[in-house]
Amino acid sequence: MSGPLDVTDLAADLIRHPSVSPDSGESQIALGATLSAMGFTVTHLPFGDGAERTPNLFARLGTGHPHLCFAGHTDVVPPGSSAWAHGPYAGDIENGLLYGRGACDMKGGIAAFVAAVSAFLAREPQPRGSISLLITGDEEGPARFGTQKVLEWMEAHDEIPDFCVVGEPTNPAVMGEVIKIGRRGSMNVHLTVSGRQGHVAYPHRADNPVHRLLRVLHELTAVPPDQGTEWFEPSGLQVTSVDVGNPATNVIPAQATAALNIRFNDLHTGAALLGWIKTICQRYAPGTVIESQISGEAFLTKPGPEVMALSEAVQSVTGREPRLDTGGGTSDARFIARYCPVAEFGLVGTSMHQVDEHVAVDDLVSLTRIYENLLERMVA
Amino acid sequence: MSGPLDVTDLAADLIRHPSVSPDSGESQIALGATLSAMGFTVTHLPFGDGAERTPNLFARLGTGHPHLCFAGHTDVVPPGSSAWAHGPYAGDIENGLLYGRGACDMKGGIAAFVAAVSAFLAREPQPRGSISLLITGDEEGPARFGTQKVLEWMEAHDEIPDFCVVGEPTNPAVMGEVIKIGRRGSMNVHLTVSGRQGHVAYPHRADNPVHRLLRVLHELTAVPPDQGTEWFEPSGLQVTSVDVGNPATNVIPAQATAALNIRFNDLHTGAALLGWIKTICQRYAPGTVIESQISGEAFLTKPGPEVMALSEAVQSVTGREPRLDTGGGTSDARFIARYCPVAEFGLVGTSMHQVDEHVAVDDLVSLTRIYENLLERMVA
Ligand SMILES: [Zn+2]
Ligand SMILES: [Zn+2]
Repeated sequence: MSGPLDVTDLAADLIRHPSVSPDSGESQIALGATLSAMGFTVTHLPFGDGAERTPNLFARLGTGHPHLCFAGHTDVVPPGSSAWAHGPYAGDIENGLLYGRGACDMKGGIAAFVAAVSAFLAREPQPRGSISLLITGDEEGPARFGTQKVLEWMEAHDEIPDFCVVGEPTNPAVMGEVIKIGRRGSMNVHLTVSGRQGHVAYPHRADNPVHRLLRVLHELTAVPPDQGTEWFEPSGLQVTSVDVGNPATNVIPAQATAALNIRFNDLHTGAALLGWIKTICQRYAPGTVIESQISGEAFLTKPGPEVMALSEAVQSVTGREPRLDTGGGTSDARFIARYCPVAEFGLVGTSMHQVDEHVAVDDLVSLTRIYENLLERMVA
Repeated sequence: MSGPLDVTDLAADLIRHPSVSPDSGESQIALGATLSAMGFTVTHLPFGDGAERTPNLFARLGTGHPHLCFAGHTDVVPPGSSAWAHGPYAGDIENGLLYGRGACDMKGGIAAFVAAVSAFLAREPQPRGSISLLITGDEEGPARFGTQKVLEWMEAHDEIPDFCVVGEPTNPAVMGEVIKIGRRGSMNVHLTVSGRQGHVAYPHRADNPVHRLLRVLHELTAVPPDQGTEWFEPSGLQVTSVDVGNPATNVIPAQATAALNIRFNDLHTGAALLGWIKTICQRYAPGTVIESQISGEAFLTKPGPEVMALSEAVQSVTGREPRLDTGGGTSDARFIARYCPVAEFGLVGTSMHQVDEHVAVDDLVSLTRIYENLLERMVA
């Protein structure tokens, strides 16, 4: 190898391999080749239950500890529109910005990690610990045959790291603002309350399911489930729909339904919240049919030495002390948290999933330095 | 005239003139002819704003006071099904029951009044007071060009009675159970609450209209508007529909709607209830669009000498002391109450608006005797 790899070249090269979710795998073959050339042991891990498999990749350099893992995804969301000023897979650079689908979410993040390792190894050819990459091709999709399956494989092969950094774009506006150390859980609940139809003039002969449902929903929304914790906002419950569909103004309807979404912190589990809802339904509307789907449990990596090392790395490169945050949508970090401490830090996410997604070349350089700084702190 | 008219013949004859609402008027021509022959001054009063007019009839015998008026309608609801065992317009009698559309609601009631007057006049050819009939052909329909218009005409012609008996079927199971002396008011209200759409994970950036609507509806339904009065049940509010129609479980919707029906006693007016709803909306959901339709205000004829005479007539014929009631659906009595004391007493209503509507011949005879008894008490 002749000198450290350039982060912008790496990112543009990944962008030029179109990989709308689920990734076909070509970008991972290119990435695997680069990592092999750097000395990584690369394992391609296609998982799935049919002919079409989700491409995944695990690559590790060294066998020692601490073992720092970098996790991410090569798949991207579709261009979504033909209104791009720069081809979504062209990898154009203009006025210091690299354009393309995946530029910030998150081919740029993967490129920064590879470039950081490359720079780190140039100065430290024999690191104390080991370095790995956990790359999936199905994060933007159902995520069934991606990170979860790779982690099972890693556990079976004794490859669970000591700390994992997910390179998703975490910064709202400028580099160094936010490290995510957890995420709220999310669940959807659908309630169906049945009553007895009747004429509005004779409510005692009917049983209005709307009134029962109102009692349930009022109790569920009267106070938030908690006041938040040191690391989490209060849990929140939103009623997203209530539907009866009764066009007759003189008829008490037979049925009423509601849909709820709950975003909950680590004071709760999905099962406990479901129990709470069941108790309230039992009180005001016995017999309510409750359907629920827990999309993810809350998780938190309490700030320990690894998170502090990441925070210090961010600070020493950007001059900003990053906020340790648990807000926002879901990511594969929810799977990793079951195995080891995990934090997320990456690029600025303003243009993610949008037309003309882009990243500042300066930010790619900055992120590379941050990851390199972390490698020095953890595995040098 | 050779002897008093037979109530069953009169009722069957009216049934044999089909008169699905609005009545074409043939049944009223037949009725008018009968009343003329009995000495009534008959005025046909077709009202309407187009070519098709609603037939109405006002007939009065004598000019003195007290003036007792009998009110009713010749129009009927459609047969509704072809599953009638007896033709809806055949006027069949079987096992002591007269079958046909209108048998109890309320051609049977009109027949009983005519037969009662006929019997009364046979014994009392020169009554002290006067007797009238207020008959409309549009009670089961919009009722715009029926009783209301006839009353305006009556007022203009100085024909307002001292007491009016509406012959609607008031008895739930047997003759003599219930006299209605008022009715609750009824209004429909439609609420549209607008908020700000957003992602469920960021409720502070959105404004969930469902939650605002829930607060409004909870407050409106938490306690009934009153505890009832000596003559009225408590007013009641029923939420008949709540609709959002948001299929996305992760989206806070922009709008939520609800439909309410209020049945209210004479402690309230429609306008006052609307003011109450506006105040609550203002508190929890400012900007709510409130649409309302007051179908009828509450009314009550406080039991005075006329109602007591009717009650005693019922008691002396049936041996039952009728309950003075204000429950149930609407009738044209709501229009009459603006002009004079009004009470409702008629047949047994179990089969009204149903297939094979019928009335017991014994009940027709009983009702005829009751009306005759009332005539003796009031105008003899
Ligand atoms: Zn991503
Ligand atoms: Zn009727």
